[in-house]
Amino acid sequence: MNLETMKAAKERVDQLIKPQGSLGKLEDIYIQLAGIQNTIFPSISKKALIVMCADHGVCEEGIASAPQSVTLMQTHNIAKGITGVGALAKQNHTKIYTVDIGVNACVNNPDIYHRKISYGSNNITKGPAMTYDQVKRAIEIGVEMADLAVSEGAQVLGTGEMGIGNTTPTTAILSALSGIDPKKITGIGANFPVEKLPHKAAVIQKALNANTVDIENPLDVLSKLGGYDIAGMTGVIIGASKNKVPMVLDGYICTVAAILACKLDPNVKQYLFASHASKEKGAELASNILGLKPFLDLDMRLGEGSGAVLAFNILESACYMNQEMITFEEAGIGVV
Amino acid sequence: MNLETMKAAKERVDQLIKPQGSLGKLEDIYIQLAGIQNTIFPSISKKALIVMCADHGVCEEGIASAPQSVTLMQTHNIAKGITGVGALAKQNHTKIYTVDIGVNACVNNPDIYHRKISYGSNNITKGPAMTYDQVKRAIEIGVEMADLAVSEGAQVLGTGEMGIGNTTPTTAILSALSGIDPKKITGIGANFPVEKLPHKAAVIQKALNANTVDIENPLDVLSKLGGYDIAGMTGVIIGASKNKVPMVLDGYICTVAAILACKLDPNVKQYLFASHASKEKGAELASNILGLKPFLDLDMRLGEGSGAVLAFNILESACYMNQEMITFEEAGIGVV
Repeated sequence: MNLETMKAAKERVDQLIKPQGSLGKLEDIYIQLAGIQNTIFPSISKKALIVMCADHGVCEEGIASAPQSVTLMQTHNIAKGITGVGALAKQNHTKIYTVDIGVNACVNNPDIYHRKISYGSNNITKGPAMTYDQVKRAIEIGVEMADLAVSEGAQVLGTGEMGIGNTTPTTAILSALSGIDPKKITGIGANFPVEKLPHKAAVIQKALNANTVDIENPLDVLSKLGGYDIAGMTGVIIGASKNKVPMVLDGYICTVAAILACKLDPNVKQYLFASHASKEKGAELASNILGLKPFLDLDMRLGEGSGAVLAFNILESACYMNQEMITFEEAGIGVV
Repeated sequence: MNLETMKAAKERVDQLIKPQGSLGKLEDIYIQLAGIQNTIFPSISKKALIVMCADHGVCEEGIASAPQSVTLMQTHNIAKGITGVGALAKQNHTKIYTVDIGVNACVNNPDIYHRKISYGSNNITKGPAMTYDQVKRAIEIGVEMADLAVSEGAQVLGTGEMGIGNTTPTTAILSALSGIDPKKITGIGANFPVEKLPHKAAVIQKALNANTVDIENPLDVLSKLGGYDIAGMTGVIIGASKNKVPMVLDGYICTVAAILACKLDPNVKQYLFASHASKEKGAELASNILGLKPFLDLDMRLGEGSGAVLAFNILESACYMNQEMITFEEAGIGVV
């Protein structure tokens, strides 16, 4: 993050032929991108999204509408580009890296990155989801995938997930970090019936009871309450800052992963961009903890990184603003 | 608006390979586009924006930071594609129609549509802005420009404005329609100094005192308190519905024009899409009166149609969602 370049970018955006500040967050996004890429002409024409796919042992507790086998099917479908995120990625030419980091099935597909650590995490109502070594490996895989995407040209990264049941561990983590009762922040995820939410919240409470969590230690939090997808996303987010590239967050699960990434390395924060305000119940709390305000308000709650890919359009708009507008000096008039 | 097609579109979107409803407003946008275009595969690949440029006699009262001559300069610059809206239009290939409908100067530029009705509107603190005939002509011009854009292939329309001082007549109209004191809804427009806002609000109050407005008659409202740009936008919005094409609103001024368009013809409403939540003070009230909730939250307040062009990206995302996702049946799995 180059503060001098950010200063130069601020000076430049104030000279563009518009009332100062009138393009609002597009201006802020431009300045942040300039600081990250260390140029007053940042570009995100090459975009990549890393989707972490994994299963969750807690599905045994009946906290998801869909059977666990949907994780495997959708992992293949994401790699084919025919799911929600794939459709949106086609619009703005985002390259998707689909990663099997813990799917509970044999995955044999040349279009998927095979980084399986285990066949799903353990049931968090009965003890830790993963060992410390497994968490560390998941984070490493995330960093390595970010390295790969950047080495293949990505100028901006996003991350998403596929994992039936994964709003349950996510909400367990958020409840542990915030101290807020799961009953208040448990949402429907992928259309879990509203009348069964008390059961889902009770399962989350059971997981919190079954594990003594050191909330100051993100590795411990992920080990006790997390999942391979969540830990992998934490790694991707850290990997973006390691590679000094902008990282566009997705919705609920990604934002919780970002909270943990920032706890592991506060330097991560300056590389982050919010995207959409997820409709999932705990999402606003997660964004508030992170201190980022989403700028897309579309009531989305799909996951897969769909909101991040949609937000790439807006980051690109900020680049167009800078590249295509002239300055007051070029126009021959004074600053308005 | 074909209700049968909308029903078919709703059935289709519920079959796409995602939890039902999980793409939120993208789904609603798709269904509305399908109804308007009468096809379950709507497309907005050809986009057009009509920018109405005009001056305002009320500038004599010292209600704008920029001199009136900036309207002329920016009208030329919009036609050149080098202002904010031009930059954003390059991103998604929006064609811009720049219209001189009332600029207070001779405009000689082959890239501008010359539809000047008068050299600026009259000072609304001293009486009506325009005659009824001038208002009718301005609306006609808007409709004709929409006709032209559609005849040249536009599948979606937006409209924007350039007119130094135009938040003053806009706020006068909004105050008249809502009955809310101008002091409560007068904003800074293009960086008018906050400490001078009481003066701007007093000028608006003076305009309300100088004109007896029939708020049930949009022609009377526009005649007494409007401007050529605002009346022209009202016409474009009506023209979109006449041509049965989707109309993406911009921010504050455009939303107030849309309120009047809907009063002239309630049929207009179903063709409208909100875009961004303008940072201008009265914008939220205007959106609430219209009953549309913007989905971009970027603190923008530039005008020119910049927010509408940005929102075209999101409408196009909704089309990609529909075109590129497969259905559960195609995937061989049941609905989640």
